[in-house]
Amino acid sequence: MIAGLHHIGIAVTDLDAAVKLWIQLTGGKLVHRELLGEQLLETATLKIGELHIELLRPISNESPIAKFIERRGPGIHHIALQADSTQHELDRLKAGGIKLIDQTARLGSEGTQIGFIHPRAIEGVLLEIVETAEKKS
Amino acid sequence: MIAGLHHIGIAVTDLDAAVKLWIQLTGGKLVHRELLGEQLLETATLKIGELHIELLRPISNESPIAKFIERRGPGIHHIALQADSTQHELDRLKAGGIKLIDQTARLGSEGTQIGFIHPRAIEGVLLEIVETAEKKS
Repeated sequence: MIAGLHHIGIAVTDLDAAVKLWIQLTGGKLVHRELLGEQLLETATLKIGELHIELLRPISNESPIAKFIERRGPGIHHIALQADSTQHELDRLKAGGIKLIDQTARLGSEGTQIGFIHPRAIEGVLLEIVETAEKKS
Repeated sequence: MIAGLHHIGIAVTDLDAAVKLWIQLTGGKLVHRELLGEQLLETATLKIGELHIELLRPISNESPIAKFIERRGPGIHHIALQADSTQHELDRLKAGGIKLIDQTARLGSEGTQIGFIHPRAIEGVLLEIVETAEKKS
């Protein structure tokens, strides 16, 4: 089951500047910062009320985020929805004929299980499914 | 004060198909549909848990949404944040040197007061401020 929004992912070029700007814009708080070496990116998560904004900065030109920025410029990158079971949702969508990026749930930030649906399936929207072990902060 | 997310706006080319697809993807419900003649678009709002997704279809090539689709393709168009007072936030941000699209709050869908911040101020992110008279459904 999809419970609602987990976070919105935004591709940025300067993480410190983006954190500062988003705090100015929204009054939100920085709640998490992580270097994801395997995914070639550095992230910072801001909490604005119940909304989590995940700022994503590529640390290599090989990062998918770097390629996104090269193609479209920085901006809103993906929407992540919270699920009870990422694998269950991936299986359900695949059975429904929806094109996936990830056939199998994989480890994401903060120990989550994540999977991406292909943007070609949703007219350009990159959708992530996230399963958290615990309730998010 | 910014309270959190109001909705995420997504540009689509076929509103009926998009509503059907998003219901399949998320199990969400269609809660509102509106023709916004002045803004040259038709919208449908889906509720997924507490998340509202606003699907936007241009009804004219002159619509800003049509121009967005022409330039970047369909996809995630904007993030709308909920505020106590849209005008207060616009004034606050302008005083802080943030470039705005709307200097003055204007009437949006369902009687809301809305204002947009310029995407050039936020590295390509189009941010909307929304003030509702009543709590959203």
